[in-house]
Amino acid sequence: MQKEKIVLAYSGGLDTTYCAVYLSKIKKYEVHAVTINTGAFSENEILELEQKAKQLGVASYKCIDVREAYYNESIKYLVFGNVLKNGVYPLSVSAERVIQAQSVAKYALSLGIKTLAHGSTGAGNDQVRFDMIFNHLIPDVTIITPIRDNKLSRETEIEFLKSHGVEFNFVKAKYSINKGIWGTSVGGKETLNSQENLPEEAWPTQVTEKESKEVTLGFKNGELISVNNETFVHPVQAIEYLQELAQPFGIGRHIHVGDTIIGIKGRVGFEAAAPELIIKAHHLLEKHTLTKWQLFWKEQLSSWYGNWLHEGQMLDPTMRDIEVFLNNTQKTVTGEVYITLLPYRYVLNGIKSNHDLMSDAFGSYGEMNNSWSGEDVKGFTKIFGNQTSIYHKVNQTVQHEQN
Amino acid sequence: MQKEKIVLAYSGGLDTTYCAVYLSKIKKYEVHAVTINTGAFSENEILELEQKAKQLGVASYKCIDVREAYYNESIKYLVFGNVLKNGVYPLSVSAERVIQAQSVAKYALSLGIKTLAHGSTGAGNDQVRFDMIFNHLIPDVTIITPIRDNKLSRETEIEFLKSHGVEFNFVKAKYSINKGIWGTSVGGKETLNSQENLPEEAWPTQVTEKESKEVTLGFKNGELISVNNETFVHPVQAIEYLQELAQPFGIGRHIHVGDTIIGIKGRVGFEAAAPELIIKAHHLLEKHTLTKWQLFWKEQLSSWYGNWLHEGQMLDPTMRDIEVFLNNTQKTVTGEVYITLLPYRYVLNGIKSNHDLMSDAFGSYGEMNNSWSGEDVKGFTKIFGNQTSIYHKVNQTVQHEQN
Amino acid sequence: MQKEKIVLAYSGGLDTTYCAVYLSKIKKYEVHAVTINTGAFSENEILELEQKAKQLGVASYKCIDVREAYYNESIKYLVFGNVLKNGVYPLSVSAERVIQAQSVAKYALSLGIKTLAHGSTGAGNDQVRFDMIFNHLIPDVTIITPIRDNKLSRETEIEFLKSHGVEFNFVKAKYSINKGIWGTSVGGKETLNSQENLPEEAWPTQVTEKESKEVTLGFKNGELISVNNETFVHPVQAIEYLQELAQPFGIGRHIHVGDTIIGIKGRVGFEAAAPELIIKAHHLLEKHTLTKWQLFWKEQLSSWYGNWLHEGQMLDPTMRDIEVFLNNTQKTVTGEVYITLLPYRYVLNGIKSNHDLMSDAFGSYGEMNNSWSGEDVKGFTKIFGNQTSIYHKVNQTVQHEQN
Amino acid sequence: MQKEKIVLAYSGGLDTTYCAVYLSKIKKYEVHAVTINTGAFSENEILELEQKAKQLGVASYKCIDVREAYYNESIKYLVFGNVLKNGVYPLSVSAERVIQAQSVAKYALSLGIKTLAHGSTGAGNDQVRFDMIFNHLIPDVTIITPIRDNKLSRETEIEFLKSHGVEFNFVKAKYSINKGIWGTSVGGKETLNSQENLPEEAWPTQVTEKESKEVTLGFKNGELISVNNETFVHPVQAIEYLQELAQPFGIGRHIHVGDTIIGIKGRVGFEAAAPELIIKAHHLLEKHTLTKWQLFWKEQLSSWYGNWLHEGQMLDPTMRDIEVFLNNTQKTVTGEVYITLLPYRYVLNGIKSNHDLMSDAFGSYGEMNNSWSGEDVKGFTKIFGNQTSIYHKVNQTVQHEQN
Repeated sequence: MQKEKIVLAYSGGLDTTYCAVYLSKIKKYEVHAVTINTGAFSENEILELEQKAKQLGVASYKCIDVREAYYNESIKYLVFGNVLKNGVYPLSVSAERVIQAQSVAKYALSLGIKTLAHGSTGAGNDQVRFDMIFNHLIPDVTIITPIRDNKLSRETEIEFLKSHGVEFNFVKAKYSINKGIWGTSVGGKETLNSQENLPEEAWPTQVTEKESKEVTLGFKNGELISVNNETFVHPVQAIEYLQELAQPFGIGRHIHVGDTIIGIKGRVGFEAAAPELIIKAHHLLEKHTLTKWQLFWKEQLSSWYGNWLHEGQMLDPTMRDIEVFLNNTQKTVTGEVYITLLPYRYVLNGIKSNHDLMSDAFGSYGEMNNSWSGEDVKGFTKIFGNQTSIYHKVNQTVQHEQN
Repeated sequence: MQKEKIVLAYSGGLDTTYCAVYLSKIKKYEVHAVTINTGAFSENEILELEQKAKQLGVASYKCIDVREAYYNESIKYLVFGNVLKNGVYPLSVSAERVIQAQSVAKYALSLGIKTLAHGSTGAGNDQVRFDMIFNHLIPDVTIITPIRDNKLSRETEIEFLKSHGVEFNFVKAKYSINKGIWGTSVGGKETLNSQENLPEEAWPTQVTEKESKEVTLGFKNGELISVNNETFVHPVQAIEYLQELAQPFGIGRHIHVGDTIIGIKGRVGFEAAAPELIIKAHHLLEKHTLTKWQLFWKEQLSSWYGNWLHEGQMLDPTMRDIEVFLNNTQKTVTGEVYITLLPYRYVLNGIKSNHDLMSDAFGSYGEMNNSWSGEDVKGFTKIFGNQTSIYHKVNQTVQHEQN
Repeated sequence: MQKEKIVLAYSGGLDTTYCAVYLSKIKKYEVHAVTINTGAFSENEILELEQKAKQLGVASYKCIDVREAYYNESIKYLVFGNVLKNGVYPLSVSAERVIQAQSVAKYALSLGIKTLAHGSTGAGNDQVRFDMIFNHLIPDVTIITPIRDNKLSRETEIEFLKSHGVEFNFVKAKYSINKGIWGTSVGGKETLNSQENLPEEAWPTQVTEKESKEVTLGFKNGELISVNNETFVHPVQAIEYLQELAQPFGIGRHIHVGDTIIGIKGRVGFEAAAPELIIKAHHLLEKHTLTKWQLFWKEQLSSWYGNWLHEGQMLDPTMRDIEVFLNNTQKTVTGEVYITLLPYRYVLNGIKSNHDLMSDAFGSYGEMNNSWSGEDVKGFTKIFGNQTSIYHKVNQTVQHEQN
Repeated sequence: MQKEKIVLAYSGGLDTTYCAVYLSKIKKYEVHAVTINTGAFSENEILELEQKAKQLGVASYKCIDVREAYYNESIKYLVFGNVLKNGVYPLSVSAERVIQAQSVAKYALSLGIKTLAHGSTGAGNDQVRFDMIFNHLIPDVTIITPIRDNKLSRETEIEFLKSHGVEFNFVKAKYSINKGIWGTSVGGKETLNSQENLPEEAWPTQVTEKESKEVTLGFKNGELISVNNETFVHPVQAIEYLQELAQPFGIGRHIHVGDTIIGIKGRVGFEAAAPELIIKAHHLLEKHTLTKWQLFWKEQLSSWYGNWLHEGQMLDPTMRDIEVFLNNTQKTVTGEVYITLLPYRYVLNGIKSNHDLMSDAFGSYGEMNNSWSGEDVKGFTKIFGNQTSIYHKVNQTVQHEQN
């Protein structure tokens, strides 16, 4: 009798290791494990993942490198929109889960397999993102979530794996880490309460740089194309290069406090030197090259875009509409941004761009010029404030304003 | 013959010194000079201002301390709205000019004087703010702006004052400074271009603190009421106390690049340790105590509110409507925020609040709980993503999404 | 043995009639039926409801008139916000369910009863509104929904009632009607597809008025206080008076197409003469008395407010924040609006208000005046368009614009 | 000696007739008159315009038909955005002035003429739109506005023309009319106050249709392509066809009250049957084919887009960004809309579209289906309302809510 086939989203952690063994050995599925690499794994690590997976009993293993698609379909727009959720978080994990779910769905489709498993628990955001995107892309596929469905505790999973002779580093890491090209998250006992910061040793990248370093970021139409005049074939490479350069300064470390999809508040640490530097540099360049209302509407739309991505709603067509908006704003966002890196901080020194609207050819702030006169400004002021003038005259609120 | 009376908004700088002499000696006005103190001047400095003004020939001098009104009518809402224009600037000067213009108008009204002078040039934001607010509050008053009207250069003004035997420190300061309780701005040759940062010596407050220091900020309904458990009669005192404590760390130094009211881009440095710490701490407290949509709408409204204040439109009634909105959101923004100050930077460690929605009594992120089950989340996900599912089914875009 | 007590939200329709019999006779509950009257029932109808309920076996019956609370907590803000969902629908049913759920919850609390039943099916918006508001206000109460839980068809319910000797008009009405002071909805076979309008006979109020009639609506701070100079103790009475006057003209009949809470699109007819006239008249008065940006932000916030109310999220504190915003905007929305009613339509003729900003004392459109000159407007135009001028100069897009 | 050349924006009305004579005969310019036809003039009328202009002394005359450019660059997006300013006004005149100013600028550029005249007075919106767009597109051109500059009254202009032997219908029309393909405005003594509607005879198109007529509008990607199954080469033709069909019903007549660019409130009547029918039909089609958040963001952006166009800021690049957004939303806005025209009103009966999200294949409102269950909705409701539940528990506001 032929076994039923199943695709398993596999990362090599405890939950998906459990799933691999449980689905293949207990449930007798023909398990096709797939890892979607968003920047977490080196080539060696991928080889290890494969070996390990096969030992667990999977029928096939595949690792798909989606870094470029991840950038093209998601990170690019997060940069265009200067998206830092709640002012700090580049959506490192949120954006990653969405592209992973999309990629797993496509892999299942390519194999023609109609059953799919993921290792999410019933307590977090990831279950929503995975399930929802599968519902959107492959609505006729059956989703199996052994950890959630059986309400398994970590201890039960370990017990099970031991009983099946599986080797695993069962000492729970003090801090759970999730790595990708758009940032690495860090959870631990401190992030479970509201008061404490993570201790120095919890951060995956320790601070080893002690001197300042100058960095020049080159943007073309809003995309990072060079670092210190070194150009790259694809922005993914520029991001990885900058991350390696800047993370040892301890830049981009924060605790994010935010709303989960399921309504509770969550708190997580993250280090994301490259994302923070890129977004802040990009935003500075925009302040010089975009008009006031471009900046206003980008902010309003991007804030919502980031939230909706965070909630896994990436396939709502509204997201495509906002993306073309953001893309169109980037026509003039070309130039260089000068940054000084220092231990635990950085300084944005300035920018240079042919599209700089601060060009002194058209008037410098605080200096008189030939394009307009003080009389023009008087006329402007009279008309600009005309409606409020009329409002106060009509409503005779002058007296009130003075009391 | 009786002299015509005029009120002069007087700060003791070159422009208003020129105006005092010009209006009293050349134009033969009875000049009533008034300084609106928003935190720039100590008591001794005020005495000096008065002596100096009288030597210049003014008929009367008055300094009005408006710090509390400034806070009550403006700073308070900038904190409630976490307003940092373009992500950095607390609107230090913009907000100050508005309250100064309002206060000068009220002073003129109280004296029954129908002519008013201010020292603005024709090249900046301030002329718009002053003129517009006078138009709004005292529309029948005549406004005189000698520097703008006569297109005077700094050199001409100096020449004039020398010829009238006026003592003045005529060596133009390398950096022009504007001080108030909500930040001190710094302009200089570096801020006239787009590339350079201010040098260390340009900053009014030099960095003298070398060790870290713990600070606890206490908020009640969104207002800062205590620093390190020391409580204050009015938030103005808490702000000044925190500023003195934190500015020697070099915190809150930035270059702001933004849109002026007159359409050009402007660039200015500023140091504002207390405003930055208060706003960032306040925002963190809000992330714990407000709902997702409160945070969303606060952000959308505050961004516009800050812009409109910056443009001097404080008396548009829309501003009052937004203020009551912001005020109402602060009902639960009560608690403490823990911060570590370090040279040139700070770390927000966490918060404590009875209104903390992250309370683990109602489910911790990533941990199962009794309020809902994995099955509930499955149902939620199905319905939450239902419309996008239907959209993709109807439009058969699945195939497309995979290509 | 004492029976367990249960509160039943009871409207006298088939579903809640089933629930009354099922819960009292089969489940042996002590059923306390409560009708929340939002304007559907006259005093006689309420007596009939009570008699009927008692025949069905309920232990107690109560009808609570919440029309004033409904207006004070909900309708008032829908008027202030000119809320017509998707441009047409005054949220007649949505707003009603919210106040009904809140009132049922308070009634259960007042009786100290911890179990609650409602007649919602599993296919509509109402289940979400009822359950969610009970979760918010009385989270420890158990909710029972016999129709949804047992997936009962209309036929099964009728069979059951017949078998228990219950008299009921079992001929399914061709059109299902839901009546309240903020509009009456009408569903039928035509509203189940996208193409058809309701036939004339489907509308609860037939058109009997053939001549035109003049109506003057008087508003004070945004609230309707008089109709044709007749003043009322409470706006609810003004609404009911206007509804009786205007509905026979066939005004305010539309088909609403919109997004349900559960993601599908729904279509429903409604007649709401008074709501439409009040909102359109109120909006016209606002166009005369509010500033440009008050109108802008009211529109942006109200659109979201209406949606969120529609989705049952009335107890999100963001709603309170928006309400104080809306309330504050109404300070000057006082005056009269002149309307002509005609068969199937109406004409808004104009307004009169002491707060009218169109007052010709301050300049009439198209006529010169003394407040400003053509020169002022030239200066205004130069500065108002300055940034876009600079943008085009810097980006040399002039050539492009012409191609 | 060679005369200086000037381009004159010429419409044949009193103001531009004055300009033609004044500039050619008094100021001795070589006047190149140009009429930008946005739908006001038939071929015969254009011939008359030309004859007349030449009699006035202009050196050359040209009429440019810009109807298609007007649609492509402006009307199209007003339809996509369902833009009805303040709920009623399709921006008939505002949009027209913008394309006219752009076209005049291009004509001046094509002739290489550096001086330009228009007939605006100093009291309205048009001066701002013309001047600003000339500043944006041809900043080095000198603008002359004889009527505004000389503060001429209508009487003075007439006197002048008579003295130069110019024939003109000097009886001031009781109502001033401005016609174009996107609507015809009507101003008169009634629109100068706030109370009165225009009388029946003031409307350019009298109501001659007495019976109802069925109309089907066909849209493709948001653009009107057919009326009653008759297809057209360009949407301009469809608009003109529909206008001719529908205006005799008296549809689309309203008084618009709104904010002028110069801060005062203005009031104007207009008839725009085709614009209103197209926008309302298009909006209905969108309610069926777009997702909730597409509708939400379209509304927010379009409201601002309409205002900014109205204020002449069409060349702010933000407008281009919003246009690509709007354009992208129209991918699925294809289908037919069924309308009944009646005297003074119309009824939108329904739509048919392959992209209709109300498709009963995925669940009908109020009917159970197989895509989800009542249990799913229960789970959804619990999670959907979770944050508000937590908020109320944490803040113990339940008691309060009941008082």
